[in-house]
Amino acid sequence: MSKRQIKLGLSMRQLGYHAGGWRHPAVPADGAMRIAHFAHIAQTAERGLFDMVFLADGLGLRQRDNPPGSLARSDRNVELEPLTMLAALAMVTSHIGLVATASTSYNEPFHIARKFASIDHISGGRAGWNIVTSWSEEEAWNFNRDRHFDYDERYDRAAEFVEVTKGLWDSWDQDAFVRDKAEGLFFRPDGLHVLNHAGPHFQVRGPLTVERPVQGYPVLVQAGSSEAGQEIAAASADVCFVAHTDLGDAQAYYRSVKSKLARHGRDEDALKILPGLLAIVAPTEAEARNKYEELQALIHPLVGLAHVYGPMGDLSAYPIDGPVPVPNDPQHRSRAKVLLDMAARNNWTIRDLYLAASMGRGHRTVIGTPGQVADAMQEWVDGRGADGFNIIPATLPGGIEDFVDLVVPELQDRGVYRTVYEGATLRENLGVPRPASRHA
Amino acid sequence: MSKRQIKLGLSMRQLGYHAGGWRHPAVPADGAMRIAHFAHIAQTAERGLFDMVFLADGLGLRQRDNPPGSLARSDRNVELEPLTMLAALAMVTSHIGLVATASTSYNEPFHIARKFASIDHISGGRAGWNIVTSWSEEEAWNFNRDRHFDYDERYDRAAEFVEVTKGLWDSWDQDAFVRDKAEGLFFRPDGLHVLNHAGPHFQVRGPLTVERPVQGYPVLVQAGSSEAGQEIAAASADVCFVAHTDLGDAQAYYRSVKSKLARHGRDEDALKILPGLLAIVAPTEAEARNKYEELQALIHPLVGLAHVYGPMGDLSAYPIDGPVPVPNDPQHRSRAKVLLDMAARNNWTIRDLYLAASMGRGHRTVIGTPGQVADAMQEWVDGRGADGFNIIPATLPGGIEDFVDLVVPELQDRGVYRTVYEGATLRENLGVPRPASRHA
Ligand SMILES: Cc1cc2nc3c(=O)[nH]c(=O)nc-3n(C[C@H](O)[C@H](O)[C@H](O)COP(=O)(O)O)c2cc1C
Ligand SMILES: Cc1cc2nc3c(=O)[nH]c(=O)nc-3n(C[C@H](O)[C@H](O)[C@H](O)COP(=O)(O)O)c2cc1C
Repeated sequence: MSKRQIKLGLSMRQLGYHAGGWRHPAVPADGAMRIAHFAHIAQTAERGLFDMVFLADGLGLRQRDNPPGSLARSDRNVELEPLTMLAALAMVTSHIGLVATASTSYNEPFHIARKFASIDHISGGRAGWNIVTSWSEEEAWNFNRDRHFDYDERYDRAAEFVEVTKGLWDSWDQDAFVRDKAEGLFFRPDGLHVLNHAGPHFQVRGPLTVERPVQGYPVLVQAGSSEAGQEIAAASADVCFVAHTDLGDAQAYYRSVKSKLARHGRDEDALKILPGLLAIVAPTEAEARNKYEELQALIHPLVGLAHVYGPMGDLSAYPIDGPVPVPNDPQHRSRAKVLLDMAARNNWTIRDLYLAASMGRGHRTVIGTPGQVADAMQEWVDGRGADGFNIIPATLPGGIEDFVDLVVPELQDRGVYRTVYEGATLRENLGVPRPASRHA
Repeated sequence: MSKRQIKLGLSMRQLGYHAGGWRHPAVPADGAMRIAHFAHIAQTAERGLFDMVFLADGLGLRQRDNPPGSLARSDRNVELEPLTMLAALAMVTSHIGLVATASTSYNEPFHIARKFASIDHISGGRAGWNIVTSWSEEEAWNFNRDRHFDYDERYDRAAEFVEVTKGLWDSWDQDAFVRDKAEGLFFRPDGLHVLNHAGPHFQVRGPLTVERPVQGYPVLVQAGSSEAGQEIAAASADVCFVAHTDLGDAQAYYRSVKSKLARHGRDEDALKILPGLLAIVAPTEAEARNKYEELQALIHPLVGLAHVYGPMGDLSAYPIDGPVPVPNDPQHRSRAKVLLDMAARNNWTIRDLYLAASMGRGHRTVIGTPGQVADAMQEWVDGRGADGFNIIPATLPGGIEDFVDLVVPELQDRGVYRTVYEGATLRENLGVPRPASRHA
C-alpha cells in the first residue's frame, strides 16, 4: 500500500509567529511592509514544493495597549494588504498556491468574487480564499459599527455570502467566450447567466465581469471550528485550517468534519484538514532547543504580559521573576483558572507563565531534528488526525528556509511528500476536484 | 524660456477604446483576461517614459442588450480587476505610475485606504487612485440597492470618503517605526494617531494597518466635470482627467479648475489637467487614415446601433445604408435632436451615424502623422487647455506601440517631453508635491 502523502501550507504572515522574533538578528524587522520579504518566503516555500502559502488577516489593529507600553513593543501592527500582495506574488512564483483571508462580515460578495477570480486568472489557477467571519470589536469600529455582529448573524451572513460568491463565479460558462473575429461574436449569449440573487443579507444581480475562474472556483479554505464553521466546511470548503495540540482532539475533529461530507454528496478526500504546526528544527535536538530558548529570551516582559492580559488582567506591577499572583479582577475567570492551575503545578514565575502562554498560540509545537519533526507529522497523518499541515514559522524567512532545507528532504526520503508538483493549479496539487458550474 | 513640458498617461482598459478593435487581426481578443497583455502594454508605456498607466472601472456590466444581439458582439464584458492588476504590474515595471479607479459609492474607506497604501508600498511610490462616484444603475444592483445614489448624496459621500481615507493614511508618522531590536521598541507611541472619525456616512476608528504611503498619499485623480467634481479636484486632486473635443471648452475648464486652487492654499502647478486624446498615428497621413477606416469597418452593425440606442432607440429594423429615420420614441429627446441635425446636415446613413457616434466617445480624436499629433498636443498645452494628455488608444497593444515608437521621439526632438524619468515616485515624475501628514 502506498504511504499517505502529506499536504503542506505555509502561514506567512508578517515576520513569523513568535512574539520576540522580530528582535532576532536574522529577522528583517521591516519585512512586513516589503514585498521582497514575502517574495523570498513564497519562492522558498515553492522550492520546498509546498501546496500553498497562506495569509491570515484582520481588518484593524486588534491589539489594545494592555498593559500600557506593550503595543509599541509588538510587531503586529502594519503589513501589506493580502489581496494586493497575492497578485504581486503571482508574478514572481509559478507553481505554489496563493491563499488569502477575507472576511464575510466586512466585505461585499461582488468585490470578493471579482478580486479572487482576478487573482485566479493572474496566477493561472493558484488562488485560494480563507473564509472567515472576523472576531474583534476593533474590526467592527472600522466599518461603521459599534459592535461586531453576533455569532448567529455573522455565520448566517457568511453562508449567504459564499453562495452569492459562487453564483457570481458561475456567471459565464467556461466556453462562453468564442471571440469569433470573422462573425463578430464575442460570447455565446446562452453562456451568460445573470444571478439575480435576493436574500436576507445581500441583493446582487450579477453577472460578474470576470471570466469563470481557471479553477472553476478558487480553493475555498475554512478555519471555523464550531458547529456552524464545520457545516460551512462540509458544504463548501476544500481545505480546513485548525489548531490542535492533542492528537485525540485532532482525530475527533477530523472524524466529525469528514463524516459530514457524504451528506453533501462529497468524497472524503475532497476536503483536506490541515492543523497548524509550529516547528523549530535544527540538525540536532540541542541546537533546536537553543534556537527556541534564544527566541523566548527576546520576548519583552510587557509583550509577554500582553499575552496573559486577557485572562489575568494587568500583572505589570508584580516582580516578573516572582510567583504568579491570584488576580484581583480576572477578565476571564475560567481561562484564568487554567493558567493558575498550570502555574501552581509547575511552580512557574510570571515570566514562565507568559513564556508558556505566548508559545504556539493554540497550535501544536514541535522542537527537534528533521527526523523528529517528520515523525510528529507522520504520527498525525497516519493516525487520521490530519491530511497535512499548515506550517506556522516562529520567524521569517528563517522558519521556512530551515523547514525546506531540513524537513522536506526527510519527508521525501520517507516517500510521504512529492518530489515534483503534480499539477498546474492549486486544486490539482491538493488533489481536490474542480467544481462544475451550476449551469453545466 | 523653456518649453512647456507634456505629461502623459495611458488609459489601458481592455483591448483599447475602438468598438470594433477586438476584431482586428493584430488585437489579442482574449487580452483583457490575461496579465501578460497588460504587462506588455505597461512596459511599452514605460519604455515611452509615460508618467502613468490608468485603469478605468465599473462595478458591473453596464451595457444592456440593446438592440438585442449587440451585447454578445461587444468586448466590454470581462476583464481583470484593477487593484489586483496594479499590484501584479508593480512587479514587472519599475518607473511608471499605476493608477486605478475605485468608486466611493460602493466601497468602504478602510479597504480603499489599505489597498492603495499597500500598492504604493509594493510599487515603491507609484500608486494613484482615480476617485469616481459611479454612474449606472447596473452597479447599484450588485451592491444591495435598487437604484444608484442621487447626485448630491453621492458627491457628499465622496467628499467624506476622501477625507476619511486621507485620515487613515496619516495614521502613522513617517518615522514612527524605529524597530529598535536592542530596546525592544517597534514604534514610537507618539507616532500613532487614531482617527476616530464619525460623520454622516462613515464611522471609522482606525488606525490603518499599513505604514504611511511612500508618497504620503497615493496620487489622487479626479474625473468629474460638474461643479461638485471640480470642487473635489481643487481641494484634493493631483490630476484631473477630462474629455473635451474643443480647445475653447478645454481652456474654460482649465481656467475654472486652476482658479479654484488658491482658495485651498494650493499652487497652480500642483494639479495637472489631462484631457483624453485618441490618436491614430502612422508615418504618413494616408496610412493613418487607412488604419482608421480599417477599424471603422470592423464595427458590427448591432454594436454600432448600440452606440446610438441611448438617444435614438432601436434602429435595427431600418436599412443600415438608408437614411436616418426620425425615431418614434426617442429615449433622450435633446440628444436625439443633436444627432438628427448632424445627420441631416451631412446627409448621413444610419451606418454613417453610428460610425461617427462611436468614435472617441467625447474625447478629442487626432488622425495623422507623428508631426501632426505632436502639433495637436502642443497647441492645447501651449494654449493652456491642458498640462498633458490621457492617451486613449484605439486598440491595444498596437495603439501604445505606435505612440511610443512614432510620437514620443517627435515630442522629445521638440524638447517638450522627458528623455529620462526625473524621479522615483509618480509624484516626483508628475511634479506634484508630496502631502505632509496632518500631524506633522
Ligand atoms: C489556523 C487558523 C487561522 C485563522 N485565521 C483567521 C484569520 O486570518 N482572520 C480571522 O478573522 N480569523 C481567523 N481564524 C479564526 C476563525 O475564522 C474562527 O473565527 C475561529 O476559529 C473560531 O471558530 P468559530 O467561529 O467556528 O467558533 C483562524 C482560525 C484558525 C484555526
Ligand atoms: C477620462 C474620464 C475617465 C473616467 N473614468 C471613470 C471610471 O473609470 N469609472 C467611473 O465610474 N466613472 C468614470 N468617469 C466618470 C466621472 O467619474 C464622472 O462621473 C463623469 O465625468 C461625470 O462628472 P460629474 O459626476 O462631475 O457630473 C470618467 C470620466 C472621464 C472624463
